Amino acid sequence: MRLPHFFEEDHRLVDAELDRLLPAENERPSLIHRAMRYSVFAGGKRVRPILCIEAFRIFSSETSASLPVACALEFIHTYSLIHDDLPALDNDDLRRGRPTCHKKFGEAMAILAGDALLTLAFETLAGAPLLPAERVALVREISSAAGTRDGMVGGQVADLEAERKQATAEMLEYIHRSKTAALIRASIVSGAIAGGASCEDQERLRKFGGLIGWAFQVTDDILDVEESSASLGKTAGKDQAQQKATYPALFGLEKSHRIARDLATQAMAELDVFGPPAANLRELGEFLVLRRA
Amino acid sequence: MRLPHFFEEDHRLVDAELDRLLPAENERPSLIHRAMRYSVFAGGKRVRPILCIEAFRIFSSETSASLPVACALEFIHTYSLIHDDLPALDNDDLRRGRPTCHKKFGEAMAILAGDALLTLAFETLAGAPLLPAERVALVREISSAAGTRDGMVGGQVADLEAERKQATAEMLEYIHRSKTAALIRASIVSGAIAGGASCEDQERLRKFGGLIGWAFQVTDDILDVEESSASLGKTAGKDQAQQKATYPALFGLEKSHRIARDLATQAMAELDVFGPPAANLRELGEFLVLRRA
Repeated sequence: MRLPHFFEEDHRLVDAELDRLLPAENERPSLIHRAMRYSVFAGGKRVRPILCIEAFRIFSSETSASLPVACALEFIHTYSLIHDDLPALDNDDLRRGRPTCHKKFGEAMAILAGDALLTLAFETLAGAPLLPAERVALVREISSAAGTRDGMVGGQVADLEAERKQATAEMLEYIHRSKTAALIRASIVSGAIAGGASCEDQERLRKFGGLIGWAFQVTDDILDVEESSASLGKTAGKDQAQQKATYPALFGLEKSHRIARDLATQAMAELDVFGPPAANLRELGEFLVLRRA
Repeated sequence: MRLPHFFEEDHRLVDAELDRLLPAENERPSLIHRAMRYSVFAGGKRVRPILCIEAFRIFSSETSASLPVACALEFIHTYSLIHDDLPALDNDDLRRGRPTCHKKFGEAMAILAGDALLTLAFETLAGAPLLPAERVALVREISSAAGTRDGMVGGQVADLEAERKQATAEMLEYIHRSKTAALIRASIVSGAIAGGASCEDQERLRKFGGLIGWAFQVTDDILDVEESSASLGKTAGKDQAQQKATYPALFGLEKSHRIARDLATQAMAELDVFGPPAANLRELGEFLVLRRA
């Protein structure tokens, strides 16, 4: 599947802003700044920042105001990957075809680089060119999505607990909605908050984000089974080897495809009310569930 | 040395608020909530929260408004201890006489519990009963003090880099000011921000905090040499075993004592202008540099 047409331009804007926000490599203490930059510029697709920007654009044309928010989301996503890859967690040596942060810089530096990116995310939000009340709303939205109560870290813990157990559909839903969907949803809602959306519109986008984020993780599970190591740039079939709780393991591939499609259809319905201004977000949603590596 | 008289009451207020803010042990996923509570309620002295509350009280009598801010600081302090104790960093098995978080819950859970406490700190600040502009100022102040640019993580990295090297006085100052003093300073400035202090008063307290925090870390280095394992509740003489950069190693004990005293004297001078309302903060400052375990 081809990338949406606006993808490349947004990607470029995000990368320039990430570069502006991250401490320079030679800034003291340089080792951690090198580690942070290594992982942030490791070839990620910038899905969360681009979702944020395109949700923002439904409500405002001042794209530059959304960029720090978009980057804060990418910092949090990157921190979560660095810590997930650690030996004590998923123990991954490769990420997008390159050595993971701890393989390159050592475990201590990887732990601290993750901590630093999480911290920098909130520093960035607090300094965004938005109203104080908007910045506060963003910190609440994003910290909650990254936390333990139905947020990213909570999903990560539930995922670890489910290993080597027979996961139920209910557990699996909890894991996917918190581990992945929560931050995807927060990316979209954050764009809406920064763009000045009404509470009603924020709630619509919250529903869209939760559903499309969930579909995105189901698709991820499917890809892990279907794709080869080479095209994914990471070790495929790894979920199965680690006895991770996944949709294909519980429902089989065919039903998993149908679940992802149904979730995406429900998600898209939430965008109807926005009409043509939501065209890019719609295209992104389709990309997230139809993508092939 | 006896604890300041207000210490016990503040401590109690802080512990009650920490209990209110932390997810319950039985809240899903319960394992991480148990780990977070285990480390937060591990017998810490609540130095940072109490500094925050007592700085706040110079400007306002509504103590309850300062409590979430005070707790956010304790969450960040606790996260830093959990991650510092990990095998890849200081590899400590004991903290305050009890098994460290990773010894009790495993490394994966300790990494995630630290991440979750850092995240919860910002969620707590964003939800504090203060004006949006004050909450934004707090997130900026505290994230910056916890980050890599002259902040806690930066100091931690510089500390790791200095091991097994001959540290210079300049390196040592950088390490101590960022690793420890930055968050101590932010605790005091945060109390001032939450209490509605003028920018001028915030700056005075920033100076006081930076100096007293620095003196506090020099004292910590001294205690590590002078005290026995039993009374410290952690492995004493550990700095030397790890070839950490410390004041006693570089200047000897006598000169280190003098440095701590001089820094404290300079710090106290910044409080003169506040008169009697700063009495508690003055007493705290003395406690921090004269304490014995």
